[in-house]
Amino acid sequence: MRYLTAGESHGKQLTTIIEGLPSLMPLTKENINESLLRRQKGHGRGKRMQIEKDLVDIVGGVRHGYTLGSPIAMVVYNDDFKHWEDVMGEDPIDDDQKIRRVVSRPRPGHADLNGAMKYGHRDIRNILERSSARETAARVAAGAVAKTLLAHLDINIVGFVREIAGIQAKEYPEMSMDDRVKISEESPVRCLDAEAGQKMMDAIDKAKKDGDSIGGVCEVYIEGMPAGVGSYVHYDRKLDGRIAGAVSSINAFKGVEFGIGFEAARKNGSEVHDEIAWEEEKGYYRKTNRLGGFEGGMTTGMPIVVKGVMKPIPTLYKPLQSVDIESKEPFNASIERSDSCAVPAAAVVMEHVVAFEVAKALLEQFPHDQFPKLKKAIDQYREEIRCF
Amino acid sequence: MRYLTAGESHGKQLTTIIEGLPSLMPLTKENINESLLRRQKGHGRGKRMQIEKDLVDIVGGVRHGYTLGSPIAMVVYNDDFKHWEDVMGEDPIDDDQKIRRVVSRPRPGHADLNGAMKYGHRDIRNILERSSARETAARVAAGAVAKTLLAHLDINIVGFVREIAGIQAKEYPEMSMDDRVKISEESPVRCLDAEAGQKMMDAIDKAKKDGDSIGGVCEVYIEGMPAGVGSYVHYDRKLDGRIAGAVSSINAFKGVEFGIGFEAARKNGSEVHDEIAWEEEKGYYRKTNRLGGFEGGMTTGMPIVVKGVMKPIPTLYKPLQSVDIESKEPFNASIERSDSCAVPAAAVVMEHVVAFEVAKALLEQFPHDQFPKLKKAIDQYREEIRCF
Amino acid sequence: MRYLTAGESHGKQLTTIIEGLPSLMPLTKENINESLLRRQKGHGRGKRMQIEKDLVDIVGGVRHGYTLGSPIAMVVYNDDFKHWEDVMGEDPIDDDQKIRRVVSRPRPGHADLNGAMKYGHRDIRNILERSSARETAARVAAGAVAKTLLAHLDINIVGFVREIAGIQAKEYPEMSMDDRVKISEESPVRCLDAEAGQKMMDAIDKAKKDGDSIGGVCEVYIEGMPAGVGSYVHYDRKLDGRIAGAVSSINAFKGVEFGIGFEAARKNGSEVHDEIAWEEEKGYYRKTNRLGGFEGGMTTGMPIVVKGVMKPIPTLYKPLQSVDIESKEPFNASIERSDSCAVPAAAVVMEHVVAFEVAKALLEQFPHDQFPKLKKAIDQYREEIRCF
Amino acid sequence: MRYLTAGESHGKQLTTIIEGLPSLMPLTKENINESLLRRQKGHGRGKRMQIEKDLVDIVGGVRHGYTLGSPIAMVVYNDDFKHWEDVMGEDPIDDDQKIRRVVSRPRPGHADLNGAMKYGHRDIRNILERSSARETAARVAAGAVAKTLLAHLDINIVGFVREIAGIQAKEYPEMSMDDRVKISEESPVRCLDAEAGQKMMDAIDKAKKDGDSIGGVCEVYIEGMPAGVGSYVHYDRKLDGRIAGAVSSINAFKGVEFGIGFEAARKNGSEVHDEIAWEEEKGYYRKTNRLGGFEGGMTTGMPIVVKGVMKPIPTLYKPLQSVDIESKEPFNASIERSDSCAVPAAAVVMEHVVAFEVAKALLEQFPHDQFPKLKKAIDQYREEIRCF
Repeated sequence: MRYLTAGESHGKQLTTIIEGLPSLMPLTKENINESLLRRQKGHGRGKRMQIEKDLVDIVGGVRHGYTLGSPIAMVVYNDDFKHWEDVMGEDPIDDDQKIRRVVSRPRPGHADLNGAMKYGHRDIRNILERSSARETAARVAAGAVAKTLLAHLDINIVGFVREIAGIQAKEYPEMSMDDRVKISEESPVRCLDAEAGQKMMDAIDKAKKDGDSIGGVCEVYIEGMPAGVGSYVHYDRKLDGRIAGAVSSINAFKGVEFGIGFEAARKNGSEVHDEIAWEEEKGYYRKTNRLGGFEGGMTTGMPIVVKGVMKPIPTLYKPLQSVDIESKEPFNASIERSDSCAVPAAAVVMEHVVAFEVAKALLEQFPHDQFPKLKKAIDQYREEIRCF
Repeated sequence: MRYLTAGESHGKQLTTIIEGLPSLMPLTKENINESLLRRQKGHGRGKRMQIEKDLVDIVGGVRHGYTLGSPIAMVVYNDDFKHWEDVMGEDPIDDDQKIRRVVSRPRPGHADLNGAMKYGHRDIRNILERSSARETAARVAAGAVAKTLLAHLDINIVGFVREIAGIQAKEYPEMSMDDRVKISEESPVRCLDAEAGQKMMDAIDKAKKDGDSIGGVCEVYIEGMPAGVGSYVHYDRKLDGRIAGAVSSINAFKGVEFGIGFEAARKNGSEVHDEIAWEEEKGYYRKTNRLGGFEGGMTTGMPIVVKGVMKPIPTLYKPLQSVDIESKEPFNASIERSDSCAVPAAAVVMEHVVAFEVAKALLEQFPHDQFPKLKKAIDQYREEIRCF
Repeated sequence: MRYLTAGESHGKQLTTIIEGLPSLMPLTKENINESLLRRQKGHGRGKRMQIEKDLVDIVGGVRHGYTLGSPIAMVVYNDDFKHWEDVMGEDPIDDDQKIRRVVSRPRPGHADLNGAMKYGHRDIRNILERSSARETAARVAAGAVAKTLLAHLDINIVGFVREIAGIQAKEYPEMSMDDRVKISEESPVRCLDAEAGQKMMDAIDKAKKDGDSIGGVCEVYIEGMPAGVGSYVHYDRKLDGRIAGAVSSINAFKGVEFGIGFEAARKNGSEVHDEIAWEEEKGYYRKTNRLGGFEGGMTTGMPIVVKGVMKPIPTLYKPLQSVDIESKEPFNASIERSDSCAVPAAAVVMEHVVAFEVAKALLEQFPHDQFPKLKKAIDQYREEIRCF
Repeated sequence: MRYLTAGESHGKQLTTIIEGLPSLMPLTKENINESLLRRQKGHGRGKRMQIEKDLVDIVGGVRHGYTLGSPIAMVVYNDDFKHWEDVMGEDPIDDDQKIRRVVSRPRPGHADLNGAMKYGHRDIRNILERSSARETAARVAAGAVAKTLLAHLDINIVGFVREIAGIQAKEYPEMSMDDRVKISEESPVRCLDAEAGQKMMDAIDKAKKDGDSIGGVCEVYIEGMPAGVGSYVHYDRKLDGRIAGAVSSINAFKGVEFGIGFEAARKNGSEVHDEIAWEEEKGYYRKTNRLGGFEGGMTTGMPIVVKGVMKPIPTLYKPLQSVDIESKEPFNASIERSDSCAVPAAAVVMEHVVAFEVAKALLEQFPHDQFPKLKKAIDQYREEIRCF
């Protein structure tokens, strides 16, 4: 399974093509719209999120509610494009029109300057339109298809917020998946810990008032994965490695960890590993899950626990210094938009990005032409390894 | 540029093939042996490291000290194979011989159990021989070639230890590359901070005495990368994402971060980003480097700073509980080897793994058929972006 | 450079995403529409080609007539979709509606039966909608972008018809590229040889009258490629191999050859190879071009000459016997559409498929971030190898 | 499944790494050596083939006669390397030594000139050592592993010679696989038709006497493939396309065709397609096999029939004119070796190259972690589609 996305932030549309899905899997627009909607929510989002409601159109690969096996194409239209047609149209324009609109001031913390140098653009709009986090809507669409596949395989996934601006939520290792989903959905900051959640909202409000922005830590939690998915035989087939790569490619993410993650540097080996037990009914299991569901690049059958850190959004009312690429004069970096905290939305993005990698690994390992056969094969495997 | 590795821990040899290098690049065995040797050093390594000295043989792609442009094959022979021929030979053997040798006891924290279930092996030796960290010697060989390429492009890279068992080394943001290399090399724990280094050694000695193991945090630091390497245009071309994926695929690594990494969740946006400045001689630069050399999936031209966390080695004198896959009876997990701390070696491995990804990204971006042309193109680009 | 396509024959639209193009390359809808239009022409096409005129919409990656460097998305809408919405809609429908429409009769020579077995579809429409040659419009869109790139690099490409129903056109080794383009465009069967062209049209008319179909041989001819593109160092980097793979993946193509191709089996070595000459002005060149522009998987600098054979379209008025997958009863295969000869259109498809592979190889070999730099690098290389 | 090869013609060794094989598949050196030996046989081979007997060493991925699931490394040592160490050693040498040995005369029909220009080598030995057909031994080793896998799945494959120097062997559509293997093996030119075979040998002898070389057509024939392997859903997943790409990447191959191939351009549609029939015991089958086992990029369940054309070897006693790259003076191209016809050996190479692509497609489609499960899944699928 592979996918490509295309589209600029203020362009006509975002487009996603996914290739390699099984046939005969139930899939509807609603599966994807639900995910797109969740991405747009969250205390601290700017105005744009409220104006535009992302809705997907499935334009290939699905017929009468089922996948065909052929590539799936999805479109999220930009309703606002009519106001941007002059700026973002694909047709050639006169040179004098161009000059008027040029963005020559790169914002720190964005792709602006490096991208302009790499691609030789002197109008930085040519960079920022694609490097914008708007593209994550296209990735969420891809991930929503993956999530649907996982759900039909009894593998459930949720992303929530563990920390914002240094305020850490409590851990709930025993909380059920249903509760994780429900509570995070009801929290305006996608936090399982109501008390911490309130403090996070206060911090967001304060940041907004101060014209500053704040970051945080998201967690993605997956239940139902069988053991032995991924592989140790070659480094690029390790599933945790692939997840880390995908998470680190989300806009503004600066780190990723599994299970206790960086804490593993501060503990003895006897406190870090998960002892192995077996019971006839449950099969092999671990008494703890410090390693976050991975050993040797493969799943252990325990929940996958992966965290990612998002830096504060760099577009601020409290500006950062930069340099105009034409005049080479310093200036205070302009504001392109005004979210003071996008961590709750980032948790949704991360959930979908991880879902895609996990689904991809399952499709690589199990027969994937027809969804019912895939499901049967995974169920059989679950039974087999129980008594391995 | 791509590479494959093969070989089992006690097999005949480790083999690496790299495809996609430019021609006419100076390369000798010594470039690689130096890296292999560094990987074997470090306070806290077990006996095996002292007995076997890894030496590479270049068996393809190099002639008279220069790369040909054709694939490079490298071999690290296992001198000890004669003692393992019966156990690890590739020829069929009688069934009664097999039974005698079967490993049926999976060690927690290793690929043993998940790997056995995935690949259907009832003799866990079939897993552990490949999942062993011995394979990192083959990855270091690949990385040593990449490091050589980088060095000829005036891009220098070093890996060192930032933390062991909770003991954190001081940061030295102003320390020169030469000093980083020299001081880390002289430290038995590859630590730039002598005082912390001594404490780390004490902690290792204590862990050894206690029959326990300890982990830590490695840092890789790269100087000389031009800005704009990597790309924001598609998520799988972001260089930080690729590095994160590669680092997380190193045995026993559980997390990775760039620049201030997880600290970004605890700071305001105004404290996280790196303001942009310009001077005619230096070109664009940043006054700080909190983002670790990356914005928008591309290099900023500042040093790349990436950290990875290694968990304590799971093979302990203080054993963990597990279950025999034949009898389904619990047992205390056996000891396959006896390093109490492999973090200094892991810093070398990480250095080479990161070097490969960085070199690969450069070869994708710049003309890569002939090394002298590659060098010229990168030098021209450096000059161009200075006055961009 | 890579691309994905999506879309069913009677679905809402065809979608193409291309990732990996340089920035700052001039590109307009007209570049692509011209290619789409050429694909629809040709003596012997059925009615559908006259009703629907394919027009592209560029929905990502292009701004004000220039590429951004970000992925390019292109859409060809299906104006007729309103009549197909019930049959091809993506939303779930009631079961009784489904039954009415099921196609259970696989046509020989199509993907119908094998596809149905592989993907478990009992309604063969689920196969034929994607396996239809309609998808080649999406590939032509991708190829048109590649052709535009090549044209800006002074590399020109044309596809024409060499043979239909056993009628062979004369070869014109000395004919200029301009004439090849002009004459083939004016010929209703894209044939450079007017006399043979007339016979081909007669054969097509006769086949139509007889309710039969006929195939033929297409040639793609490329001028302006520098020598040394592709590589011998690893088998999957040979450019002729990649072209052969791409051509053989065009619907109904059953073979591919370079230069004299299969004739090489009937000649002595002294008659097959191309002697090497050198003149200061021209650089190295060949006195003949029997090998079709390739030696060792690389271009020689001579024109690329590649031929592909298309079998007759299997949907005929003169039906073929098959078996209903529900009743297992034999039947005479139904007609889905009525082209009696699609070879002229196939020449256009092949032209674009080859253009993509050639452009991709150039982008791999030369710096490809910015188009003006790419052009400069290729021009420099041309000059370099002239006096090599 | 993927593989890389490395090694120069007169270098120390050829190395192959295959990644992605299932565990628990029986595999021994003998499986591979048999293939290597077959590659070296054939009327018309030069002296080198008789001196050196290629033998493989398996140096990774196999234990006690079974695959582990980890990458397989194979080595073919060059016994003659001791005589070439000065010329081909990897260690730096003095400049004056280099000069003495430089090859500055590119041979027409080889990679020599294009390769030298691409990689900037002024000593053409740096090209010819890797571009040599010697590398096909490494590809045969990879293919031999694939062939072993196929054989255990009751899929059998054989390559033989259909034509040499215009002498065409009769077709034997009814001949059993066993006879194809046996008769071709006994024929010094791998020809099923004894009479034609004798004429081919005479032609080879004559060519040798004349100092000329001759080419021919090889056929690969595969029995036992289930229908529906490959896919029509995306162009790069069509199995015939992949085979065409792989075959065209064999040294000196200039074309490839499936079934009646180029003849399809000379027949009516009613004579080209294969009507579909069904019987309870046999399932679906075709009454003919003109399409060579492929429809829509997928197998039909009929034998795969693919042909490839090999041009005469360009190194001749009857020399071709070329130009010295130093003096720019014309010269008559030198002889590096002296096979007058390598078509019988090429049939073996092609057999193995095709085997790899076919095995790869099966592994993509069916569960491939454990060989016994793969076998079971394919057997189940065969049964399923019989009554589809």
